[in-house]
Amino acid sequence: MPVDQIANLAQKAKLASNKLASFKDDLKSKALTEYAREIERNKEKILVANQKDIENAKAQSISKALLDRLKLDESKLNSVMTGIDQIAKMPDPIGKIELARELDHGLELFRITCPIGLIGVVFESRPDALPQIASLCLKSGNGIILKGGSEAEHSNKILFDCLIKACTKTGIPTDAFALLSSRSEFSELLKAEQYVDLIIPRGSNELVRSIQASTNIKVLGHADGVCHIYIDSSADWDKVAPIVIDAKIQYPAACNAVETILIHESIAPQMVIGLCHALKLRNVEIKCDKRTKTFLPTEFDAQITDAWHTEYGDLTVAVKIVKDIEEAIEHINKFGSGHTECMIGEDKDAFEKFFTEINSAGIYLNASTRFADGYRYGFGAEVGISTSNMHPRGPVGIEGLVTYKYKLVGNGQIVSDYVGKDARKFIHRDLH
Amino acid sequence: MPVDQIANLAQKAKLASNKLASFKDDLKSKALTEYAREIERNKEKILVANQKDIENAKAQSISKALLDRLKLDESKLNSVMTGIDQIAKMPDPIGKIELARELDHGLELFRITCPIGLIGVVFESRPDALPQIASLCLKSGNGIILKGGSEAEHSNKILFDCLIKACTKTGIPTDAFALLSSRSEFSELLKAEQYVDLIIPRGSNELVRSIQASTNIKVLGHADGVCHIYIDSSADWDKVAPIVIDAKIQYPAACNAVETILIHESIAPQMVIGLCHALKLRNVEIKCDKRTKTFLPTEFDAQITDAWHTEYGDLTVAVKIVKDIEEAIEHINKFGSGHTECMIGEDKDAFEKFFTEINSAGIYLNASTRFADGYRYGFGAEVGISTSNMHPRGPVGIEGLVTYKYKLVGNGQIVSDYVGKDARKFIHRDLH
Repeated sequence: MPVDQIANLAQKAKLASNKLASFKDDLKSKALTEYAREIERNKEKILVANQKDIENAKAQSISKALLDRLKLDESKLNSVMTGIDQIAKMPDPIGKIELARELDHGLELFRITCPIGLIGVVFESRPDALPQIASLCLKSGNGIILKGGSEAEHSNKILFDCLIKACTKTGIPTDAFALLSSRSEFSELLKAEQYVDLIIPRGSNELVRSIQASTNIKVLGHADGVCHIYIDSSADWDKVAPIVIDAKIQYPAACNAVETILIHESIAPQMVIGLCHALKLRNVEIKCDKRTKTFLPTEFDAQITDAWHTEYGDLTVAVKIVKDIEEAIEHINKFGSGHTECMIGEDKDAFEKFFTEINSAGIYLNASTRFADGYRYGFGAEVGISTSNMHPRGPVGIEGLVTYKYKLVGNGQIVSDYVGKDARKFIHRDLH
Repeated sequence: MPVDQIANLAQKAKLASNKLASFKDDLKSKALTEYAREIERNKEKILVANQKDIENAKAQSISKALLDRLKLDESKLNSVMTGIDQIAKMPDPIGKIELARELDHGLELFRITCPIGLIGVVFESRPDALPQIASLCLKSGNGIILKGGSEAEHSNKILFDCLIKACTKTGIPTDAFALLSSRSEFSELLKAEQYVDLIIPRGSNELVRSIQASTNIKVLGHADGVCHIYIDSSADWDKVAPIVIDAKIQYPAACNAVETILIHESIAPQMVIGLCHALKLRNVEIKCDKRTKTFLPTEFDAQITDAWHTEYGDLTVAVKIVKDIEEAIEHINKFGSGHTECMIGEDKDAFEKFFTEINSAGIYLNASTRFADGYRYGFGAEVGISTSNMHPRGPVGIEGLVTYKYKLVGNGQIVSDYVGKDARKFIHRDLH
């Protein structure tokens, strides 16, 4: 598509999105169920298209990790269909009354959930992200303009076609959905702030950062995931190694993997030695402060660092000794990215302090930071994790794709009657 | 203060804000009550300081409207104190559990409200805005850096000193609060995105726009208030003139005043004549589309316009005839600012369509757009009105000054146990 057409496309999608807001939940759920069936019916075609993408990718000698993400198989498609069916069955996120208040007799105020509008999504490699994100947007009544990785072009195209067919069959206007095919098209979309309400980038930190820098539209996501584990003096030693190892090695590239371990000085000597041994055994490289280094045998060869705001994303972890919980909190607030932090300890008061004074989306006690995920939180699915201070924050599921409007229903009320002397008084009575 | 000190000031305030998050509601409420008493005790001093500001302003031949806003008197100060006492009595907005879910036995997830952090507020002329905003921030556990209008310098200083005295007496750290005195200091604060979580500008659209353009920090507010009234064919004629007149003339400079009237063509001839007469009688100037003009007697001298995205802010209103409710909705979505729109009509289905398909913070049936206000909504007070699509939206009271964190409490759980074969299954049971 010529890039000068993108603003038109976005305008049309935005207009159609406004209509989408009025579709009832049963119709949206029907379209989703239909979408899953459409994928089922086209399974063979999808796998053939995916095979083509795989071969092209191989010809460009793409990394094994990328190939794994790119590859679709029967089992991945089954998960996709199960996921869509689950989203279809979720309660309607739209039209929920969050506040109902009588301002005066015959003057009633409601705050009601509604779709955000039109959402631009860019995602890398994984074609199974497309049906997941599209389903969440459809269920929440949002229009969506998608841009997948060019390496998954054929897979994405057919997965998108299935969506369009399902909507057409169900009578949902398809102008609210579009699939872009080039980066330059998406760059143009980032300028269409009149029509696009939210951008969701799913991919590397570099992708998120470059998008944040190039648009005035609100971007949902996180550019960093510098997660911490603080081991308090009250820690149950049996819990330490399993949690730290899970948080570091279960999926080191994930944004919720741990990057820095802070150890209370009162337990430092033995804890440093024990924990670092356990990590070394699992090939985790250790960077540390000077003091930690003094506790480690020379053969450890741990590198001294002071680059505490580093997301390693691999089998590397930073270790630092802190004087007390105060220093741990200050360190995290200073060097963290607002993602997820864990305290290992049995002192509940210390944890309350840790929870209250740290400014991050997730604050854990005795659990791996890797739990920070929409599926694990029971949201069914997630569009991403937000490290913003404001809503939506943390793992963002379908609830993060809705906003609200105020509805005021009167029968001719005017403000003049409520000012000056003999003014009418507001009642402000909540309706239940 | 030298501008190179501002980042330090913000850092210090941010650190103190983290502590503020842990103060219990009774202490914050006590500090607020103390604040009101401190203002009471210093009433004379405040009025003397305000008199100085008034005299300086007069010497600079400032407009009457500005002088009115600048002037404090016994009655305004009484309202300020009543307002603070009301905020003190409001339920604690912090620590509310919005979600409680058992992910697995012994692994519990909570979503809990918490302060946003450090808020920068810039406001113009009205010194009574200072105690109102500061009280909302204190009650919600947020630190605040204020910058008032230079014309209110003496009044602001003493109102701020009263806050500091009240906090000191109550034992609340005062590093979380600061008052800036120059524009260049505030410009510097806009760069401190590491420490400042939210900027709230209270003032003209120009102020809001210039701040939005010069910071990466989230700005809460609205740059425009282009509100509409659509008169449906089902309108009860007796309701039309009172609502339109109230929405236009009760306070024309307000952002929730109406700027454009859309009239359904089936009732246009008489409605246009009747309504425009009523407006003219109240000295409201009319701008209109060509078709409306044809219905108006020549002595009306209405100017033809097509600048539909105009916030007049004075006794001027635009009038346009629309074919149907569809055209009204499209017009509002295209030219509106997402603030507040009203439909006058008795057809409930038409209103549902109007409500659902328009993307604005407030959608009203048969009530003046001037109701869009935190006090009228029963929020006690407001820090501003947000025309953002996302939270917080519309009039923003104390609830808009809180965000949330996820708390996960476990006893050693790791993610590895929940993946692969023989994986543990999540329970995802909501706790009530």
